Amino acid sequence: MSAALERFRIVLVDTSHPGNIGATARAMLTMGLTRLTLVNPRRFPDPDAVARASGATRVLDAARVVGTLDEALDGCVLVVGLSARRREFAGRVLPVRAAAAAAVAHAARGDVALVFGGEMSGLSNRELARCGIVATIPTDAGYGSLNLAAAVQVAAYELRVAAAGDAVWTAPRFAPATADEIEALYRHGTQTLIDMRFLDPERPKRLLPRLRRLFARAGLEKEEVNILRGILARIDELVRRGPRR
Amino acid sequence: MSAALERFRIVLVDTSHPGNIGATARAMLTMGLTRLTLVNPRRFPDPDAVARASGATRVLDAARVVGTLDEALDGCVLVVGLSARRREFAGRVLPVRAAAAAAVAHAARGDVALVFGGEMSGLSNRELARCGIVATIPTDAGYGSLNLAAAVQVAAYELRVAAAGDAVWTAPRFAPATADEIEALYRHGTQTLIDMRFLDPERPKRLLPRLRRLFARAGLEKEEVNILRGILARIDELVRRGPRR
Repeated sequence: MSAALERFRIVLVDTSHPGNIGATARAMLTMGLTRLTLVNPRRFPDPDAVARASGATRVLDAARVVGTLDEALDGCVLVVGLSARRREFAGRVLPVRAAAAAAVAHAARGDVALVFGGEMSGLSNRELARCGIVATIPTDAGYGSLNLAAAVQVAAYELRVAAAGDAVWTAPRFAPATADEIEALYRHGTQTLIDMRFLDPERPKRLLPRLRRLFARAGLEKEEVNILRGILARIDELVRRGPRR
Repeated sequence: MSAALERFRIVLVDTSHPGNIGATARAMLTMGLTRLTLVNPRRFPDPDAVARASGATRVLDAARVVGTLDEALDGCVLVVGLSARRREFAGRVLPVRAAAAAAVAHAARGDVALVFGGEMSGLSNRELARCGIVATIPTDAGYGSLNLAAAVQVAAYELRVAAAGDAVWTAPRFAPATADEIEALYRHGTQTLIDMRFLDPERPKRLLPRLRRLFARAGLEKEEVNILRGILARIDELVRRGPRR
């Protein structure tokens, strides 16, 4: 886990539905975040939270429940508030991607809080005034109603990518064919196409360049060259046998 | 709405929980996606889907329900499969951000499908073999269990940012102070600090550069310069009155 991820607190203010708290815990843990603070949750702990956490219950078990936003933010070197709507806020407003980059930079100095308001109306102007940065998730102009846990998921994802990159598993790699193996394939293939009377060497048109383009785009592997040469050899046999019939 | 967003189909295969279908519809619409195809959903239509869609029911109403993945992908110029786990897949595997960029590029030529497997085990190897690109959302090494609709939310968010950018509302801007107004403020402030006997002009140390640095970082506005000069003028009055007491 990136050290920066340990510095982030996710703070939910005035959450109405415990299911959203559970889904938030799950969203956090998928991205490597574990520190959840709840300011005045309506119902917590609650079985709905456990159900939606789906195995991320250790985030719920370790959650801090406090009565004021001040307590939740104590000691933080940066407070980032999430807000969808345009507000009377004169500070820095950033897309969530840029806000995540700023949050990771600040995390080198201390704890950083990401604050999410209640389901119905988000953070109040007074709460936003506590934030050094307001982060906004870009949404459709006509329907911007992100679910609370979905907003946490996107923000946590951006924090993770900013802190730890987005390297993922890669497909197994096989040995690539060498240039000489590929040229031998083309020579073989060209001769076979001529023998098959599919290619007229006097009027080759664009056939060979198109085939080269196709295989170049795919990036041939050693084993694939062997398979293609096997197919060509079989065609060669059929061509040689042809006149006997 | 960006034209590219109209080209994307979200395809859910073998979905067990109708709540996830509803949450997917909501996640899609927040990002401007409207075309949902369901392959063999266990329960659909269903009141749980409507409840979780939270106003995005028009996506559910327009959803196509089909029996095979082939029908869902008919006519697509690119199929992107989402998969969390490392697989026996020898094609292109990309982080979801890079996959979204590729998807937007292909959308100029025709429809692009994003395919999500069932809640328990995701897409089968056979289904993945239908995909030109496998996209992976980076997750914590120990807990990669993204909720289905949460995965759709992240992927749809990346599609939107790739297709339409992530410009968001910005805070109201006020007129910036000009360089001469700022220099006049510093001259005034320096004199006041000397008069207050807070600054020794013979041994200024680092006080003035530190104050310049603070205000430069903030980026002074015209009105703020006026406020600060008002405070300085009041201090000047107090300093002048001092000896009388």
